[in-house]
Amino acid sequence: MAAPAPVSSLSPPEVPMELHAVNRKKLLDSFRGHLSASSSPLQGFVFLQGGEEQNRHDTDHVELFRQESYFAYLFGVIEPGFYGAVNIANGESILFAPRLPADYAVWQGEIKPLSYFKEKYMVNYVYYTDEISEALNNQFQGSGTPLLYLLYGLNTDSNNYSKPADFEGIDKFKTDLNSLHPILTECRVVKSELERAVIQFANDISSEAHIEVMKKAKVDMLEYQLESLFLHHTYMYGGCRHCSYTCICATGNNSSVLHYGHAAAPNDKILADGDMALLDMGAEYHFYGSDITCSFPVNGKFTPDQSLIYNAVLRAHNAVISSMRPRVNWVDMHKLAEKVILESLKEGNLLVGDVDTMVKERVGAVFMPHGLGHLLGIDTHDPGGYLQGAERPTDPGLNSLRTSRDLLEGMVITVEPGCYFIDALLIPAMEESSQTSKYFNPEMINKFRGFGGVRIESDVCVTAEGCVNMTKVPREISDIEAVMAGAPWPIEKSNVPYMNGKT
Amino acid sequence: MAAPAPVSSLSPPEVPMELHAVNRKKLLDSFRGHLSASSSPLQGFVFLQGGEEQNRHDTDHVELFRQESYFAYLFGVIEPGFYGAVNIANGESILFAPRLPADYAVWQGEIKPLSYFKEKYMVNYVYYTDEISEALNNQFQGSGTPLLYLLYGLNTDSNNYSKPADFEGIDKFKTDLNSLHPILTECRVVKSELERAVIQFANDISSEAHIEVMKKAKVDMLEYQLESLFLHHTYMYGGCRHCSYTCICATGNNSSVLHYGHAAAPNDKILADGDMALLDMGAEYHFYGSDITCSFPVNGKFTPDQSLIYNAVLRAHNAVISSMRPRVNWVDMHKLAEKVILESLKEGNLLVGDVDTMVKERVGAVFMPHGLGHLLGIDTHDPGGYLQGAERPTDPGLNSLRTSRDLLEGMVITVEPGCYFIDALLIPAMEESSQTSKYFNPEMINKFRGFGGVRIESDVCVTAEGCVNMTKVPREISDIEAVMAGAPWPIEKSNVPYMNGKT
Repeated sequence: MAAPAPVSSLSPPEVPMELHAVNRKKLLDSFRGHLSASSSPLQGFVFLQGGEEQNRHDTDHVELFRQESYFAYLFGVIEPGFYGAVNIANGESILFAPRLPADYAVWQGEIKPLSYFKEKYMVNYVYYTDEISEALNNQFQGSGTPLLYLLYGLNTDSNNYSKPADFEGIDKFKTDLNSLHPILTECRVVKSELERAVIQFANDISSEAHIEVMKKAKVDMLEYQLESLFLHHTYMYGGCRHCSYTCICATGNNSSVLHYGHAAAPNDKILADGDMALLDMGAEYHFYGSDITCSFPVNGKFTPDQSLIYNAVLRAHNAVISSMRPRVNWVDMHKLAEKVILESLKEGNLLVGDVDTMVKERVGAVFMPHGLGHLLGIDTHDPGGYLQGAERPTDPGLNSLRTSRDLLEGMVITVEPGCYFIDALLIPAMEESSQTSKYFNPEMINKFRGFGGVRIESDVCVTAEGCVNMTKVPREISDIEAVMAGAPWPIEKSNVPYMNGKT
Repeated sequence: MAAPAPVSSLSPPEVPMELHAVNRKKLLDSFRGHLSASSSPLQGFVFLQGGEEQNRHDTDHVELFRQESYFAYLFGVIEPGFYGAVNIANGESILFAPRLPADYAVWQGEIKPLSYFKEKYMVNYVYYTDEISEALNNQFQGSGTPLLYLLYGLNTDSNNYSKPADFEGIDKFKTDLNSLHPILTECRVVKSELERAVIQFANDISSEAHIEVMKKAKVDMLEYQLESLFLHHTYMYGGCRHCSYTCICATGNNSSVLHYGHAAAPNDKILADGDMALLDMGAEYHFYGSDITCSFPVNGKFTPDQSLIYNAVLRAHNAVISSMRPRVNWVDMHKLAEKVILESLKEGNLLVGDVDTMVKERVGAVFMPHGLGHLLGIDTHDPGGYLQGAERPTDPGLNSLRTSRDLLEGMVITVEPGCYFIDALLIPAMEESSQTSKYFNPEMINKFRGFGGVRIESDVCVTAEGCVNMTKVPREISDIEAVMAGAPWPIEKSNVPYMNGKT
């Protein structure tokens, strides 16, 4: 008997802390530019508060801590209870560590000296959090009271505002709540080479895990077993303790529920012969995420109906990736995806009429109510999708877009077209009184009620002249069927557009 | 080639919602008794607010929701955003479900009718949360303004207070913050037969997962890979999406860190030849937890030193379980465990002198600074360890006890003696100026510096005349070595005291 193939070809890479030093430098340059432009003095501190461990309700159950994302971006600190500052005058960075009680050594582990954090996180100084006021005053290079630039602004995905740093004695400082957020957010939009390498690893291990799941999925399994396989592969072989988001393991009609998998819809259906599976799962590595969706028939063979819908979405996915390059507008990409899907549905006899008119009348949003994709980074829905003052589109479907921006070199964005059969949208759109009813072929549409949906999602990095698909999973139907039947991946002949233009 | 043994002999059981109806009935009877004793009218409502989904900081990253524990106890509701009431006059139960927006159907899933929740959760009525005031007034059987008994009280493990229910219009009701908490907490202390069955399943799947980990652990693996194997086994085969607590996978000297494994000490050491592993991991099933620790040498063979410490702890574990029955005091059990451990250390030449005097002078707390065990249920550290007004012991070691109570039939409590070599405790205890220094044999103790520690933890249910050990893992050294070498478990000859007295 031949030795079994190794379970993973990957191992968790060491992430250089230089990544965060580069992030700080980028912010510093950008922020100084902003201050110069408004003739403000180049002094004071960018000042952030890291996250704290959270207890579950009134109990002592502590949730596994994951750093606040802006703090992670600038400092890369994994421990809770820190603060951090960047001195605008000289660019020096300062971390403030909590002073731990003596019995921490017994219960939680060695109490590390400040020098440990200074070296680990490549900052200029480390003090205790009870020394913030004193340290900032001592480090301040300017006259009068030091000015602290705090992080306060709107997250356009959650509609929540970030909580500015707070500490005992902050009332003795001058603070600015308006300047930092848009500039720091914009820094996060374009990824450095070091950041892209981490996102690539998150993609590599998650791609491999998706393939593992694809190979092991069988009729009569439970949806959550696919989640468990994915989580195990990414943690066991990739060291990914966190997922980017709760796994969506939807089969059958559940795959028409865009955010299936949460506590009230917990991936608990049995995989039935004839079901499509829609698996939206991505691991996080050193704060940076991945966000990948694979769709396939759980029994390993596409029916003609499944092929029709799958290929409609795949053509949209490929058309978008083939068109992506700097200065391309994301709303246009969304409409391109819609158009390709609608064309395929028309070819398949589900729709009748002029496709361009359908796009205008927002028929695309009936089948794809979500946006084409979103920025990806330390948050799955990375911030910066709408610049301050930018207005969201209001048309159906387009109003779900998490960004309407033009692409920039270095953006990492998901390309995730989908086609779903959602009664809550189809029924009103097909009602006689609706002006879109004329486009639908009710007989064919009814055949697809209960089908669920298909989503194909890759993480794509915009390059100088095109883009690179960072996600490496089988996409062509023949490849998926081959891999599910046991063929090794990658299959050489694959013609998925992993790249366009020069990189 | 023989077919491989099936990976699991278990499958997730259906949990009858009657479990929560029984919990409500128990509370009702107890609460009515309390009201009668204080000549208060048997009317008004027990009124609780369930948990809400939480976003991570300002983002739209939603943490996987897990119900607040008291609400889970009474209603078993897995969905966020609910309220619940028990009508004291007639015992009827009412749930209040959030009124979901229409687009929930597109993004989150089917909007269930109220009748769905009524049937699923076996309650008498279900209304929307915007109907609370109206429904309570309509259902109220009494004169005047309805009185709501809200949950407010101290969690003696976290020192946090529970947050009483709040809703728009609550100011129109009379409220009582003092009566409910101690009575509901006491209900949770003694487990019903239905509750014990769920805890037993959590124990069965977690025991099986521990054995799986034991079989797969090898030198040069990473600690977190053991965590990943455990999580995968309990989710894949047991349907356990949640763990009771963050896994502690400590090897080598890390095993002397009692709560290793958190974000700042994240199970990331390489398993070295000669290391002991201390794995404290337990899955949760339908809200009810397990809490199990196994300790073993990562290379599969105990050295004489490892055997000495391991057997010291195992003898303590077994001595306690052999002595547990109703009315036995838990502080006495803690001291019994200490005494057995100290006797073994004396036999092993690490200590010299009279063991009873050592116990009095708290030498036991140097080696076992944590309490012997804690109540276990919907919380890992289940509430009710200290009755209102009960004082915590103040002596070292005893002051870590999460309960000082006498055992009651139906309590489920962990038995988790340990023996650790912790510099932060050993050095001061052995200093010449310390009155305990005379008990230590420095030469032998120094040999064990860096050894780490051993903990053996089982979940034990107190019966009418004794107790039952719900945890089913190899404990004897010969059994552990056999299982790690590939022997099937259970091994028939095993003589671990799974039970004492009649059950």
